[in-house]
Amino acid sequence: MHPYLAEFIGTAILIAFGNGVVANVLLNKSKGQNSGWIVISFGWSMAVFVGVYAVSKYSGAHLNPAVSICLALTGKFSWADVPYYILAQVAGGFSGSVLMWLTYRNHFDVTEDTTAKLAIFSTIPAIRNPVFNLVTETVATAIFLFLVLMIISPSDNHGALEALPVAFLVLAVGLSLGGPTGYAINPARDLGPRIAHTVLPIGKKGSSDWAYAWVPIVGPILGAIIAALTFNALQ
Amino acid sequence: MHPYLAEFIGTAILIAFGNGVVANVLLNKSKGQNSGWIVISFGWSMAVFVGVYAVSKYSGAHLNPAVSICLALTGKFSWADVPYYILAQVAGGFSGSVLMWLTYRNHFDVTEDTTAKLAIFSTIPAIRNPVFNLVTETVATAIFLFLVLMIISPSDNHGALEALPVAFLVLAVGLSLGGPTGYAINPARDLGPRIAHTVLPIGKKGSSDWAYAWVPIVGPILGAIIAALTFNALQ
Amino acid sequence: MHPYLAEFIGTAILIAFGNGVVANVLLNKSKGQNSGWIVISFGWSMAVFVGVYAVSKYSGAHLNPAVSICLALTGKFSWADVPYYILAQVAGGFSGSVLMWLTYRNHFDVTEDTTAKLAIFSTIPAIRNPVFNLVTETVATAIFLFLVLMIISPSDNHGALEALPVAFLVLAVGLSLGGPTGYAINPARDLGPRIAHTVLPIGKKGSSDWAYAWVPIVGPILGAIIAALTFNALQ
Amino acid sequence: MHPYLAEFIGTAILIAFGNGVVANVLLNKSKGQNSGWIVISFGWSMAVFVGVYAVSKYSGAHLNPAVSICLALTGKFSWADVPYYILAQVAGGFSGSVLMWLTYRNHFDVTEDTTAKLAIFSTIPAIRNPVFNLVTETVATAIFLFLVLMIISPSDNHGALEALPVAFLVLAVGLSLGGPTGYAINPARDLGPRIAHTVLPIGKKGSSDWAYAWVPIVGPILGAIIAALTFNALQ
Repeated sequence: MHPYLAEFIGTAILIAFGNGVVANVLLNKSKGQNSGWIVISFGWSMAVFVGVYAVSKYSGAHLNPAVSICLALTGKFSWADVPYYILAQVAGGFSGSVLMWLTYRNHFDVTEDTTAKLAIFSTIPAIRNPVFNLVTETVATAIFLFLVLMIISPSDNHGALEALPVAFLVLAVGLSLGGPTGYAINPARDLGPRIAHTVLPIGKKGSSDWAYAWVPIVGPILGAIIAALTFNALQ
Repeated sequence: MHPYLAEFIGTAILIAFGNGVVANVLLNKSKGQNSGWIVISFGWSMAVFVGVYAVSKYSGAHLNPAVSICLALTGKFSWADVPYYILAQVAGGFSGSVLMWLTYRNHFDVTEDTTAKLAIFSTIPAIRNPVFNLVTETVATAIFLFLVLMIISPSDNHGALEALPVAFLVLAVGLSLGGPTGYAINPARDLGPRIAHTVLPIGKKGSSDWAYAWVPIVGPILGAIIAALTFNALQ
Repeated sequence: MHPYLAEFIGTAILIAFGNGVVANVLLNKSKGQNSGWIVISFGWSMAVFVGVYAVSKYSGAHLNPAVSICLALTGKFSWADVPYYILAQVAGGFSGSVLMWLTYRNHFDVTEDTTAKLAIFSTIPAIRNPVFNLVTETVATAIFLFLVLMIISPSDNHGALEALPVAFLVLAVGLSLGGPTGYAINPARDLGPRIAHTVLPIGKKGSSDWAYAWVPIVGPILGAIIAALTFNALQ
Repeated sequence: MHPYLAEFIGTAILIAFGNGVVANVLLNKSKGQNSGWIVISFGWSMAVFVGVYAVSKYSGAHLNPAVSICLALTGKFSWADVPYYILAQVAGGFSGSVLMWLTYRNHFDVTEDTTAKLAIFSTIPAIRNPVFNLVTETVATAIFLFLVLMIISPSDNHGALEALPVAFLVLAVGLSLGGPTGYAINPARDLGPRIAHTVLPIGKKGSSDWAYAWVPIVGPILGAIIAALTFNALQ
């Protein structure tokens, strides 16, 4: 399978499950409604696990532009592939959201809360404050990507055996650092679904909040730069 | 152990635990009553883990007609065995329900809610709408089986080492895609227990809702076809 | 380390953690008070994991008279060692309870509920009905031990690598079959702590409910016999 | 990477995540507010997992003065390195707290509860009673470290493969023995963040409760001594 296609598929899987768990917790009459943060954070962790496990042997399973940029900055990935990986990841994020929406169609119809509907697709900060929201996304992504760099072994191709440590790392990030902004830590995870929220014919859906969209893009990229510089300095 | 017997035993284990966790959460006075979706989804995930781990070396541990059909469609399993596997799986599902019912006898007696009693055996949609319920089961099963095809390695016999990734995949499906219909994603998981609900002498049990029974059969089979076609197209 | 000592230590660890998680959930002012069945079932599962992992290379880590009897019935363990293993397990269960009690001393003092205090040590059925309580313990133990027999490989010594599958099996039993009787599935798990409850100077502790004590002894032994006969018949 | 630097980084990671999960559960408007003990105990467990996994090959990943002391007492670690490891661990604990605080800045501002704010950094006993709080920390650490000694294999360097068993052990300790004092079981985990609480410009933060600070230092050291003596006696 071509690496770009693998990134597309892997990110679509990641977002179908990741958006899906938020839908399950937030939408009216869903069987998992109000089942809490343990469900949200395990849901995203298992979403990463299956996405990485499925496509790691084809593309390294970045599934995240910040991962691709960080690996390029540390010499572990070719810059020439970065734009195509990012395009595939954002397209995958969009497509995964559509799959989630197909699955939860009935429940969007019976949910009035437009903030909840957006929160299923994209991240919304708990307290809106662009500067500190950016700090949160930057610090959380820097820690996340520094640990990704420490975890992946220098000799291998970020294979399926690393799916479990990376999934547990994402569980850790969600449980511990996800409280303020919902841990985008991945520009494609936020942008792809936000485009889907904008274009899909969801009834009574409210704003797609494009004013916030730069934070979960810029923060993770800054985090990637910090993680790469720190990692390089320690070599 | 003969593969058909292994499928029977593995599916009985899967359903004894899977139905059991719903009984624990829904039945009056049970120690796990109202313990929520995290218990339900971990319960089914661990049910898959132990069922697959126990019998995978004998039968490949399909435990699900949609798995058998999907593997046959991709040339990984013989069509000649499919009907016998399905029979063994449905019989196992029935038997596992009976074991669960023996375990929770007292609690069925003190529970008035007939919908809860049925929900322990078979799936009930959160919002009844056959078309979208079918879409949900089809999409969820297609994603599930596409990932099963990506996860199982081409060289091996779907062995015990794959029990954990498959269990985590089922955890992901439950947490993220289970909200609307309770994720049958397995015709035997729904049909076997529904027969048990019909024939067992459960007091004040209400309807077995056979009008809905086709959805968790047809949806997973459609999902199996979509997953197999997608997987084949990508080879 | 001598196998009998290993069984003593392993069971003490199992019960210190297993009783401990119930204390955390039930005792007043404990930080985990009312944290629910997911905490209880993960707590017992991790208790098994660490107990088995620590001593499996010395004794096989039975930690349960029903396991020893079942392995003897299937020719995998010497009958001559069974009585000494059981003594070590019951003594370990007693000692683990004492360690738990030392840890939670303050919280026993501020808890009035005598049923809760006993439930931390020994199992109490949710609905008292000796016949069906016995059925529940028998069925749950039979499924548990049949799966233990299927999981342990014929060639090895039930080593540390099997700690995780066995812990997940205990998680499955707790989540799915633990609702009616609190899943003793282990005579030493119930008897050792019940003796501790009887002799320890716990303030205002109420009855140790010896009238029920036979159920979590006889049920698991019946389950061991059923599991062994079933397993032997399938060979 | 130099071992002292690895201990600093690993402990900073441990505390950024460990303090972070408490912040997520306790701070106002955080997305994980009131999500309970399952989130707390999984958060600390995954914090250990990623911290150990990241640096174990460089320093053995003690991340805890009680671990360093216990390993020195059993001849597995050089006494000459102990003071430097401890300094690195306490400095790491301080730094991890600062990272957590950066991530949750907005939420500290909207939280009035000064006890909650301190509980995010350092441990606070549920029932204040220095003698029994000391007993709890001593017993919990003794069990924890005895099991660490049993789990780490004699031949290896406490490598990444042991990250998962150790993380599950910490999950067990949290679920089962964490109720009375919040399971410091690590002097650096309490002291480093308590210094951070004292010096950071947190608005309306209340006392740093230095009167209690000796308990989570002395208890874990006593536990280390007991664990080492017990382990040595059993060889």
